[in-house]
Amino acid sequence: MKTADPITDLINNLSKLPGIGERTASRLAFFILNQPEELAKNLAESLTNVKDKIGLCKRCCNLTEGDYCSICMNVKRDRDKICVVESAPDLRAIENTGEFRGTYHVLHGLISPLEGIGPDDLRIAELLRRLQGAQEDEPPEIAEDITEVILATSPSVDGEATSLYLTRLLKPMGIKVSRIASGVPIGSDLEYTDRMTLSRALLERREL
Amino acid sequence: MKTADPITDLINNLSKLPGIGERTASRLAFFILNQPEELAKNLAESLTNVKDKIGLCKRCCNLTEGDYCSICMNVKRDRDKICVVESAPDLRAIENTGEFRGTYHVLHGLISPLEGIGPDDLRIAELLRRLQGAQEDEPPEIAEDITEVILATSPSVDGEATSLYLTRLLKPMGIKVSRIASGVPIGSDLEYTDRMTLSRALLERREL
Repeated sequence: MKTADPITDLINNLSKLPGIGERTASRLAFFILNQPEELAKNLAESLTNVKDKIGLCKRCCNLTEGDYCSICMNVKRDRDKICVVESAPDLRAIENTGEFRGTYHVLHGLISPLEGIGPDDLRIAELLRRLQGAQEDEPPEIAEDITEVILATSPSVDGEATSLYLTRLLKPMGIKVSRIASGVPIGSDLEYTDRMTLSRALLERREL
Repeated sequence: MKTADPITDLINNLSKLPGIGERTASRLAFFILNQPEELAKNLAESLTNVKDKIGLCKRCCNLTEGDYCSICMNVKRDRDKICVVESAPDLRAIENTGEFRGTYHVLHGLISPLEGIGPDDLRIAELLRRLQGAQEDEPPEIAEDITEVILATSPSVDGEATSLYLTRLLKPMGIKVSRIASGVPIGSDLEYTDRMTLSRALLERREL
């Protein structure tokens, strides 16, 4: 059967999204067809907007609408700690804890020899420039004086490699470098915790 | 954290789709942000197109770009059998079998007393008008002479109710009415077939 072409088009475009196969795409497309026109219109607009308007923060490389992101521009944030994350979703996850009052730096990836991603492919140069002091074109009210860099990459092979690389790079600069803790997740059952996590939890035990 | 607003907008709009929660929406949004602009642009365009261009076929109520759908306009289709389906995706499923050479009629729903959907909410009037012969404004090359109506609604409570209603309506008009078979699905294991399906398979057994 040949469906009218705009439907097939929509199904094909939807199936390009991750985790959406042809069946789901088709279900979504027919759902959209059955809904008021507004839903499709709003979704189309927000898709166009997001690519037109979003760029990288000139300081921390977070996604932003303007030159600097809302976190870097927020005068209430601490200016002495940077939390280094892999991606904007990771930043969002940490921000949602409400535990961190400093600023971030988004690497946009992890060092991964297997995938051919080296330090130069990440936003590490931007991080070093930040640590060397204020740039000429920066607003003076967001000037920072960094004393600690918290490495918050995932405890995966690539995350650990990136963390190790950054530690070796930053420590000689006299900056305190720390790493987020790994261990048994809160609320989980010891019996079902994997061996790697459990041995890490033992190694990194704290005195009470 | 306040993400730049266009991203939140996109996430909100994506979460309105069925089966897409806030987490998936957020993953999709950041995926779209990381992809070349073309992906978002094409998806936005196809969303607009699908609502602007798609209407109902004047004869069978299938989704179509023009006045009549490609199946109704196809001169190679049989003009004596109508297969009645609940929705456009159901039509697509039957069409994909390649077993049916007649035309369709899409009801756009099923009779469902529980949800307050009665016969008048479906495209049954359009079906009756079709069975009464050619309309004045129809192209003569697609004129039809229906002798059999195949009821291909799902074997669910609502599907059976709709099928029963249509049988009572159409049989007195002297039209042959048939129903798709129910039974054990091909390739499945008798042991794990539910009781309702199995008893139906027994009741509707065929002599070999």
